[in-house]
Amino acid sequence: MRIALDAMGGDRGSGLIIQGALSALRNNTDFEIILLGPEDFLESQLSEQALDSSLSDRLHIEHAPETIRMHESPVEAVRRKKDSTIMVGFDLVRNGHADAVVSAGNSGATMASAVRKLGRLKGISRPGIASMFPTLKNPVMIMDLGANVDCRPQHLVQFAIMASSCTGKVLGIPKPRVGLLSIGEEAGKGNSLVKEAHDLLSNTSLNFIGNVEGRDVYQGDIDVIVCDGFVGNISLKVSEGLAEAAMKMLKSEIEKSFRAKLGYLLIRKAFANFRKRVDYAEYGGAPLLGINGVGIVSHGKSNATAIKNAIEVASVMIRNRVNSEILEALEDYAS
Amino acid sequence: MRIALDAMGGDRGSGLIIQGALSALRNNTDFEIILLGPEDFLESQLSEQALDSSLSDRLHIEHAPETIRMHESPVEAVRRKKDSTIMVGFDLVRNGHADAVVSAGNSGATMASAVRKLGRLKGISRPGIASMFPTLKNPVMIMDLGANVDCRPQHLVQFAIMASSCTGKVLGIPKPRVGLLSIGEEAGKGNSLVKEAHDLLSNTSLNFIGNVEGRDVYQGDIDVIVCDGFVGNISLKVSEGLAEAAMKMLKSEIEKSFRAKLGYLLIRKAFANFRKRVDYAEYGGAPLLGINGVGIVSHGKSNATAIKNAIEVASVMIRNRVNSEILEALEDYAS
Repeated sequence: MRIALDAMGGDRGSGLIIQGALSALRNNTDFEIILLGPEDFLESQLSEQALDSSLSDRLHIEHAPETIRMHESPVEAVRRKKDSTIMVGFDLVRNGHADAVVSAGNSGATMASAVRKLGRLKGISRPGIASMFPTLKNPVMIMDLGANVDCRPQHLVQFAIMASSCTGKVLGIPKPRVGLLSIGEEAGKGNSLVKEAHDLLSNTSLNFIGNVEGRDVYQGDIDVIVCDGFVGNISLKVSEGLAEAAMKMLKSEIEKSFRAKLGYLLIRKAFANFRKRVDYAEYGGAPLLGINGVGIVSHGKSNATAIKNAIEVASVMIRNRVNSEILEALEDYAS
Repeated sequence: MRIALDAMGGDRGSGLIIQGALSALRNNTDFEIILLGPEDFLESQLSEQALDSSLSDRLHIEHAPETIRMHESPVEAVRRKKDSTIMVGFDLVRNGHADAVVSAGNSGATMASAVRKLGRLKGISRPGIASMFPTLKNPVMIMDLGANVDCRPQHLVQFAIMASSCTGKVLGIPKPRVGLLSIGEEAGKGNSLVKEAHDLLSNTSLNFIGNVEGRDVYQGDIDVIVCDGFVGNISLKVSEGLAEAAMKMLKSEIEKSFRAKLGYLLIRKAFANFRKRVDYAEYGGAPLLGINGVGIVSHGKSNATAIKNAIEVASVMIRNRVNSEILEALEDYAS
């Protein structure tokens, strides 16, 4: 099993990405990693690491001189930068030299590149981005997170089938509970997209539990939540922004008194555990579901742990043949 | 100035609502309050308070034997329960016996009742719910929060005009910064609704700062954020759910060690200040903008402070003639 890793993606430099790769290789012996980036640059980076052969034998470099930046328009960048890390990575998958691509770079470009090089899974009109979120209990997979901003009801059904197959296989949940994000629990509540999707989802063999509300997302009683990519992306960004703002406000309150600062010293470890519990890095990457292959996008701010976990998500998806599961589920639904 | 208050709305009983009313009367001397509810019940509630005449002279009762419950369908409930607190309240406004209605009950029914009894402001096709949110700096007004789940671009422009007039008048901000909630800052980013609304908003005289993202909501650099009611409601509920879940997770981490529990005792006041800073109760009620009168909905979990603040928002809106301001702004836009 070979996983191609975009060594140039993300906001924090390739040093952390290579660290993540090494950490994944040490942790698991059943895959190899192909680093994507300018050959000379990556060779000099690796030479600094003084790796022993048990690792270096499983770590390869594929020359990709170009990088697609975060702010670039995905469609245009993919057309123009044929030798970019992401494009070269999906070329490797297409030619059978790799089994997956992992990138912390431009997620829209990663999706566009995957669709261009590998195509869609049969029966899927809109591939999307799915991701795990921490909750009070088990993590929940939300799809779509931004690849499809205008959806038809049928697309939400496809998201539900794909995310349900993925969580079922990856987390080993037998019948994942699937909820439809809306503004009220009753079937009639929501916008016209959601009302129609509710009817369609009720007629699948999925474990569809009906509408769920925004306040249910972090409760942990749902395994999969589907929504259009506009709503999913805003929910994700609002959550990130709120968490960050709340920590800043709390910190500024603590800094107002000596007593509270002292208390913080005692409580610091609990805070660190809390942060670890809600840290995106612990939840690995976000699978691109619906492409004819495996692609994982990782947060632009990914640290080494996040990269390691994203690589592991890729390996679990390959090993458990998530795409075969999706194709079977789609056939069941169509028949 | 007379403000009609739904004494039967909300999840926490009329005791707290009456406390909120008394607190508002003590705090401000320029308005009177009309309690809406079953006369006998409210009289017995008030008789327990032993009010002196300076308060009791400014506190009236209007008999409204029926109550619309939280789970009832707004349109149906409003049609069926003609003697409900909310309907009686807006009747008072229509007949000139009150200047505003405040309710912590069913917000959909409050909106439906307001539209039925008072009608829409001239030029407004879709009234909506606006509310203030705490941020790192100044509060931001978000509209719509759930009254309109399927919107056309023109509706978002009307929300922007109304919320801008309201924050301008209520908070005294000369040129409120108006943002359009989307999934990227560039003009071309977003779903088709947002892309069209962006073009329309660029051609108004509003201080339109362009698209804003979910992560900007709590930063405090925007005065007004517009979105359709589906997205607004989900953003609100996701935020509430995340805040609640995060506090629970943090608490469970603190409870794992004696040291952290001790630390919590020292830090408790900072936590309390933080909670107060983000407490919805401090931000008062959510104005129904676009109706031909003043209506304020308050959170179902409102405590006495939240009710008091909602009453004060109503009084500020009446005093500052927010609706006249909106009508003028609409005329400017149309001309």
